[in-house]
Amino acid sequence: MSQPTSPQHKLRLGVLGSGSGTNCQALLDACAKPDFPAEIAVIISDVENAKILDRARQAGIEARWIAPGKFRTKLEPEVEQRYVAALRQHNVELVCLAGFMRVLKDDFLKAFPGRVINIHPALLPAFPGLESWKQALDHGAKVAGCTVHFVDAGVDSGPILVQAAVPVLDSDTAQTLHARIQVEEHRIYPEAVRLIAEGRLRVEGRRVLRRE
Amino acid sequence: MSQPTSPQHKLRLGVLGSGSGTNCQALLDACAKPDFPAEIAVIISDVENAKILDRARQAGIEARWIAPGKFRTKLEPEVEQRYVAALRQHNVELVCLAGFMRVLKDDFLKAFPGRVINIHPALLPAFPGLESWKQALDHGAKVAGCTVHFVDAGVDSGPILVQAAVPVLDSDTAQTLHARIQVEEHRIYPEAVRLIAEGRLRVEGRRVLRRE
Repeated sequence: MSQPTSPQHKLRLGVLGSGSGTNCQALLDACAKPDFPAEIAVIISDVENAKILDRARQAGIEARWIAPGKFRTKLEPEVEQRYVAALRQHNVELVCLAGFMRVLKDDFLKAFPGRVINIHPALLPAFPGLESWKQALDHGAKVAGCTVHFVDAGVDSGPILVQAAVPVLDSDTAQTLHARIQVEEHRIYPEAVRLIAEGRLRVEGRRVLRRE
Repeated sequence: MSQPTSPQHKLRLGVLGSGSGTNCQALLDACAKPDFPAEIAVIISDVENAKILDRARQAGIEARWIAPGKFRTKLEPEVEQRYVAALRQHNVELVCLAGFMRVLKDDFLKAFPGRVINIHPALLPAFPGLESWKQALDHGAKVAGCTVHFVDAGVDSGPILVQAAVPVLDSDTAQTLHARIQVEEHRIYPEAVRLIAEGRLRVEGRRVLRRE
C-alpha cells in the first residue's frame, strides 16, 4: 500500500471507462476540491465516442481513445501495453476503473501492482458480473449496494476497500434501484481514493484495514 | 401465502432449533406482547440438552426432544415424519427454524408448503452455509447482515422476506461481528413472522412483496 504522501503531493489518477462515466464525474468533482488529495492525470476509453471522454475534455483533462482491438471482453495484449504506456506517460499512480467493460490481464495488473481499483454496483461477493442491480432485484434481495475493490485476476473478486448498502423497495425497477446505488457509488469511490491517497490503508490477506 | 387472519386468531408457530435459541427467545419475547399476531405452539430440538428447550419450559411452552437418528446433517426419513406429526399435533401453521442444524428434506417441506422460514446470519446470496459471519470477516466484507428467507430444497436459497445490514468494523472479531448481526436478527425475525401472520406478503417468483 502507499505511504502517507506529503500534503503538497496529489495522487495522480488514471481513469478507464467505456460509457457515460458518472463515477468518473464523481472523481472529477472530488478532485476539483482544493483539499482533495488526488488529481486526474488522464482519462482513457476503449469507446471512441464514450461520454466519459467528453467529461474529460469539459474538465480540461487529457482524453485518450485507445482502440481495443479485435476482442469483445478484453484488450489485445499489445493494446493493453498501449494503455500501460499512456498511463505511465502521465505518471499515473492509481488506476481507477469507472465502467470499463473489459477485463484487464495479468500484464496490466503487474504494471500497477495493488494500484488498480474498481467500483461494482453490488455488495460483493453477491452479484458479480454484469447488471448486478438487476441480478439483485431478480433474486429478491432486500438490501443491495456497491463495492470499491482492488482489481485482481478474477472477476470482481479483489480485496474490498469500501462498501455501502441501500434498501431494495417493492416498487423498484432495475432503473430506480440502479439510481439509488449510483448515489452511494458516487460517494464511496472518492472516499476510497482519498483513503489510498492519504496512505491510510493496509492490506492483510483479503482484509483492507485502516492504519492506526 | 396466508390470507389476512381475524384479529382474534394468532398464527401458530413451531420453532425448531439445535442450540441456545437466541432467535427463538426473540420470537418468545415478541409473542409475549398482546398485540403480536402469532404464538409459539411447540419448540422442538434434535439435541436433548439444548438451551432452546430450557427457554421453552421457562416460557411454559411445550418442549419436545425428537432424536435425529443416525445422520449428522439431516434427519432420518421416519424421524422427519415424527417432526411433522409433532408440529401437526400442535396445529402449527408456520415452522420457524432457529439455529436448526439439519437440512429438511422435500417430504418435510411438502408437509408445510411455503410455510417454513429460516434466519441466516448473512446478506444472502452472499455467505451461505456455516459461520457466515466468519466467512464475511475473512472475505474482508465491509457490510454484513442477516436474512429471513423461505426454506426450499437448497441451502439458504429460498425467497427472501427481510434483510438487514450491519457494518463490519476493522476491530471486529468473529464474535463481535456475530453479536452485531444477532441484534438485527432478533429484530427482523419477529418482523417477518408478523408480516406472514398479518397476510401482508405475496410471492412473485423469487421476490417477496408487500400486499398493497
